[in-house]
Amino acid sequence: MGKRIYNFNPGPAALPLSVLKEIQGEFLDFRGSGMSITEVSHRSTLFDEVINDAKLRVRRLLQFGDDHEVLFIQGGASLQFTMVPMNLLHDDQVADYVNTGAWSTKAIKEAQILNKQVRVSASSEDRDFTYIPKDISFNEAAAYVHITSNNTIRGTQWSSYPDTGSVPLVSDVSSDIMGRPMDLAPFGLIYAGAQKNLGPAGVTLVVIRKDLLERVPETLPVMLKYTTFATKNSMFNTPPCFAIYVVQLVLKWLEESIGGLPKMGEINKEKAALLYDYLDKSDFYWGTAAKEDRSIMNVTFRLTENTLEQTFIDRALENGLAGLKGHRSVGGCRASLYNAVGLEAVKALVSFMADFERRYG
Amino acid sequence: MGKRIYNFNPGPAALPLSVLKEIQGEFLDFRGSGMSITEVSHRSTLFDEVINDAKLRVRRLLQFGDDHEVLFIQGGASLQFTMVPMNLLHDDQVADYVNTGAWSTKAIKEAQILNKQVRVSASSEDRDFTYIPKDISFNEAAAYVHITSNNTIRGTQWSSYPDTGSVPLVSDVSSDIMGRPMDLAPFGLIYAGAQKNLGPAGVTLVVIRKDLLERVPETLPVMLKYTTFATKNSMFNTPPCFAIYVVQLVLKWLEESIGGLPKMGEINKEKAALLYDYLDKSDFYWGTAAKEDRSIMNVTFRLTENTLEQTFIDRALENGLAGLKGHRSVGGCRASLYNAVGLEAVKALVSFMADFERRYG
Repeated sequence: MGKRIYNFNPGPAALPLSVLKEIQGEFLDFRGSGMSITEVSHRSTLFDEVINDAKLRVRRLLQFGDDHEVLFIQGGASLQFTMVPMNLLHDDQVADYVNTGAWSTKAIKEAQILNKQVRVSASSEDRDFTYIPKDISFNEAAAYVHITSNNTIRGTQWSSYPDTGSVPLVSDVSSDIMGRPMDLAPFGLIYAGAQKNLGPAGVTLVVIRKDLLERVPETLPVMLKYTTFATKNSMFNTPPCFAIYVVQLVLKWLEESIGGLPKMGEINKEKAALLYDYLDKSDFYWGTAAKEDRSIMNVTFRLTENTLEQTFIDRALENGLAGLKGHRSVGGCRASLYNAVGLEAVKALVSFMADFERRYG
Repeated sequence: MGKRIYNFNPGPAALPLSVLKEIQGEFLDFRGSGMSITEVSHRSTLFDEVINDAKLRVRRLLQFGDDHEVLFIQGGASLQFTMVPMNLLHDDQVADYVNTGAWSTKAIKEAQILNKQVRVSASSEDRDFTYIPKDISFNEAAAYVHITSNNTIRGTQWSSYPDTGSVPLVSDVSSDIMGRPMDLAPFGLIYAGAQKNLGPAGVTLVVIRKDLLERVPETLPVMLKYTTFATKNSMFNTPPCFAIYVVQLVLKWLEESIGGLPKMGEINKEKAALLYDYLDKSDFYWGTAAKEDRSIMNVTFRLTENTLEQTFIDRALENGLAGLKGHRSVGGCRASLYNAVGLEAVKALVSFMADFERRYG
């Protein structure tokens, strides 16, 4: 085996090494079946145990009861951008959306493509999405309020969720789910592409409050209805078995090796603080997000001398630190510090940054 | 490592052992990157090489040129049941469907859910879908003619494709793609869930003739438009990277270890003949599909003494032969002989069947 790298990719992203080793170890013979997990029938007891355990762990980690349902769907958050309004927003209703960046913008656009009534109740576009809007007034009659809990491109995150009264919150939580404790009470639905904090690309976790299932129109295509997934244990057709299996192992790692979300949240705060503290002390680097809205998952920064950024990214990679390039739409640098990125990786990054500053500063 | 089993699962199904070993070997360090394939960015050169090589191999194996496009989509064949009419069937047009079983029936139903005009031009429902309709007259003005090339539940397969003149054929080829040579000329679109002949569950291969892309309405949700996948190299959003990677390795195995589709087709014919010949000689077992329409991929059979079937399936599993239970909707037995099921597996099955017949016959 070659040397493992410190992986700061924005997604697909680092996975826990112990999980990867477990997958590798049983890859030719899944739990004594004589088959690979990729060859096991989804209609078998073996796979039932995988998906049911994954669902149970989601329930335990996020601490919700029987009033919510756990679904596994394909297509990523981008498919949820259309499934949410298709399922939950009737033609005579309006939904509120908060626009905090490129992903929110796409969610709004997909609702509009369906000719649904969308009201953008707040936006941080005026300052390039570098902050989270405050003191928003929501429509009390809205079908739901949609937010993006963490914004990977500009590195902002809702530190607490807005009060929407009795209107259910719907959130894209792709990039910070399970990164800290979360109270699911105000949420009607959350969705998360797995490829950041949960597992590999190819499966989307959806948690929906059961009463919202009653809104789903009967007339939708079967694969685009939340009710199909809810009534068939996410196995109306063949699910993405391998991706669900890896999610199960990652959730097990979160519970049994890390010790749950309160502990994970502390570790993530410590990791982010280490890097932000360094950025704030330096004149050579600077963080691009408003301080009070900084993400603990994606730390976006620039070099004061912009022209040095490519050299910085190249030298970092040569030193075993990968994935530090900012999103192609905004440039600059970004370190994604998802759950599986250890404190030692962040220490190595800060140490490299200090060294780079000494050489080029 | 435990003992590997002979795997006759209908899907997810057997994969080539050499491919599984290759995945296992590089699982912690994908091609020297210091990351697992599950951790590699889809926006990297490393992953570009994977997806582009997979596309090139599809093109080479099916021997088509620049007039067709290769797409990788999530959601399985079931999502294609709605995407096909959504993209290719305008409201003022009609499409012909041939109903050869449960999967065709679902495809028809999904088109109807969209309020599209569907004409069932032929059906084999009168004899429980145990044969393929012949001498069908198609609507010359149809937008397309939809067929299911291989029917996993009843074990039938089109031995040659119907002549639809200038009307493009659309086919669900999930369960026999790459199982034999295929002339793509009459096809406007084919789609295949990967989990039978191509790889693990979680990705669907679509090959579309480029002129059909011009039919796609602008107003569809972005993730449900073939044009999105065609213009973005199937990476508008994060694709199911691991599943595509395994497909690439399976296609490489097909080309480099098997020797391409003519050779694969010969092997598959030989495997199927071995089992069908045995069934035909026996009074203890009988094949359920019409002889001239028998599938070389899914061999469906019954025991003359129905009550022995569960014992047969149980004893088979004890003897290292898994996945022989028929589909839950029809009962009986089924051996799926996909590409990765070797001749030695079929020999072991026939030998077990003869032994079981001696004991219980």
